[in-house]
Amino acid sequence: MRVESFVTPALLLDRHRLERNIRRMAEKARRLGVALRPHIKTHKCVEIAKIQRNHGATGITVSTVYEAMTFARAGFDDITYAVPLSPDKFQPVREIADAARIKILLDNPTTVDRLSDFCVEQGISLDVMMKVDVGYHRCGVTYDSPEAVHLAERIHAAPGLRFVGILTHEGHVYDASTTAEIRRRVDDAQRAMVSLARKLKERNAALAPEVVSIGSTPGMSLVEEIADGITEVRPGNYVFYDYEQVLLGSCGIDDCALTVVASVVGVYDDRIVIDAGATALSVDPGPEHLNLQRAFGRIVRINGERAEIPGLTIVSLSQEHGKVRLEDNADKLTIGDHVEIVPNHSCLTANLFDTYHVIEGDKVVARWRISRGHCGSANV
Amino acid sequence: MRVESFVTPALLLDRHRLERNIRRMAEKARRLGVALRPHIKTHKCVEIAKIQRNHGATGITVSTVYEAMTFARAGFDDITYAVPLSPDKFQPVREIADAARIKILLDNPTTVDRLSDFCVEQGISLDVMMKVDVGYHRCGVTYDSPEAVHLAERIHAAPGLRFVGILTHEGHVYDASTTAEIRRRVDDAQRAMVSLARKLKERNAALAPEVVSIGSTPGMSLVEEIADGITEVRPGNYVFYDYEQVLLGSCGIDDCALTVVASVVGVYDDRIVIDAGATALSVDPGPEHLNLQRAFGRIVRINGERAEIPGLTIVSLSQEHGKVRLEDNADKLTIGDHVEIVPNHSCLTANLFDTYHVIEGDKVVARWRISRGHCGSANV
Repeated sequence: MRVESFVTPALLLDRHRLERNIRRMAEKARRLGVALRPHIKTHKCVEIAKIQRNHGATGITVSTVYEAMTFARAGFDDITYAVPLSPDKFQPVREIADAARIKILLDNPTTVDRLSDFCVEQGISLDVMMKVDVGYHRCGVTYDSPEAVHLAERIHAAPGLRFVGILTHEGHVYDASTTAEIRRRVDDAQRAMVSLARKLKERNAALAPEVVSIGSTPGMSLVEEIADGITEVRPGNYVFYDYEQVLLGSCGIDDCALTVVASVVGVYDDRIVIDAGATALSVDPGPEHLNLQRAFGRIVRINGERAEIPGLTIVSLSQEHGKVRLEDNADKLTIGDHVEIVPNHSCLTANLFDTYHVIEGDKVVARWRISRGHCGSANV
Repeated sequence: MRVESFVTPALLLDRHRLERNIRRMAEKARRLGVALRPHIKTHKCVEIAKIQRNHGATGITVSTVYEAMTFARAGFDDITYAVPLSPDKFQPVREIADAARIKILLDNPTTVDRLSDFCVEQGISLDVMMKVDVGYHRCGVTYDSPEAVHLAERIHAAPGLRFVGILTHEGHVYDASTTAEIRRRVDDAQRAMVSLARKLKERNAALAPEVVSIGSTPGMSLVEEIADGITEVRPGNYVFYDYEQVLLGSCGIDDCALTVVASVVGVYDDRIVIDAGATALSVDPGPEHLNLQRAFGRIVRINGERAEIPGLTIVSLSQEHGKVRLEDNADKLTIGDHVEIVPNHSCLTANLFDTYHVIEGDKVVARWRISRGHCGSANV
């Protein structure tokens, strides 16, 4: 089939751009001498993770136990579950650990004790990464606090737990306003992690982290050096990129591999309406701190060299409608025309669909499943 | 199972609140003498639509062909597809029309001609509603424009099409700041629709609309009178309500039937982090025009009389994390505690899950499937 015959909205994945993004990041990680453990929460797709593995990814990162289960079943046997573990996930993680080596994340002494008790009771041992906060202030122990050392010691000492390393997500790079600022924040994050690793080793050789892990797409797209002592990087979004990454300077519009194809369903004096709304694009507003006019993704030309179409701005989304403001210089669009949209946030957009329609030029060459959902779906 | 044993995040649906909301709206429609055609885009769930039908709903409203297909297969045989039809949907609608009576929506002369040609070619006839704009300025012909009359005439005259009525969605009630303003806008919408219906009838008795349809949850929750000449209402969100409706004054917090149960996965000095992020709650910011502090849903007490928990504000969401700011008066929460969240926008939240866990008190009494997805999933 060809793109123009779609029932819309549908999700398109440009295979050439996807593979180029995967190859470039893999080459960069090799050049910089760090392991690449991509975050699969962006794509939730076994076929894409296999391409990443074929290019040398050493394992994967997930952010839900559902993702961990899905990829363990598909034969991925080295998984880092990069959200602090809560007790409702002990049993699911225990089941995954039968099929794959799973590293879990802790940042709280109470959970260390509870998980240790659970592991002893179950007669198992789990690999634990300590989550570190280097400035994002979401999760983690502060990198230069006494608690960081105490918690590492506690994990190391806990029966049933094996302390394997430290992990941060320098998510505050997304709040930077310039690429220079992103680079600076990533450098600071690396220094903080290396300094904590050194402190732990000095305290006790047994605490020397095997893995020192950082990771974000803007960071890994923009840095050209990795500090000695960082062993692993975990970017996720780079497989697709998106319009937020374009605005942050992580990539160009032509690198964006994921788009939503929508139909024009209404044409009016000052606007058109398309059949891609909040359930097709997500209402992620993009990088609001850049003080740009708010827009929900960017309309681009279909196929060939990617270019933004001037004079069209997606100004609001309701559930199934997207309202597009027309400037005077806008192309004349009519009912039934297709538009292709680079979403603001490809991770959230992919999570709204069941299927990637993989395209080469204007031909669909494959359909890949998106394993979206929650472990809660399986609650029994 | 009991609520406390969930693997989180999971979606809870309080059966008592759901049935109370459905019953009240059904009683109101009966009292006001209008047909109730609920919009099922909110719940996408056959079981819930059956409860609505048992309470006297005369048909359903859908906003995608996928929803139309799903509900036609489940035996719903009177469906209004309330988004202007685009040519990619002609063939799917033609297939649905074999199983159910489907009314489609048009607001553009070009599509009238193209659909008419299609129907003639296929040897079928389709029921058409004309979409009217009464102030929301998303889709529709302006109610008092000459185009409105011309378009109705064109539909009426088109072979293969049957003009059955006029339809509006007074979505601009969501931009109102007071309940008085919502009521005023709904009254104006009713007057506009009745006046257009009269004008059409005066022009040509054959143009007298059988159906004059309006519909929004804030409107139907707050009005106590319906203008003579309005025949049908199409609220959707009222089955669940949500925190946006609470803030708009459409309902109280205790009417909200849908919640997300999440676990505390991190505890820090100034905040906790929960395992409900953008993929569990959606990043809908709620009614921004009210200039409230931005928050992504409201944390409430689990079970019993619903009450907001003071001192906790969900200030930001990343993909799987929710960051909750703690005020001094906040309850002391610890890792593994469950919190229950009334989402800002229940339609978008439900669309992120596969299953409603239907609860009575703290017991799960049923699991109902959510038919989320896009027709694009079935592209072949």
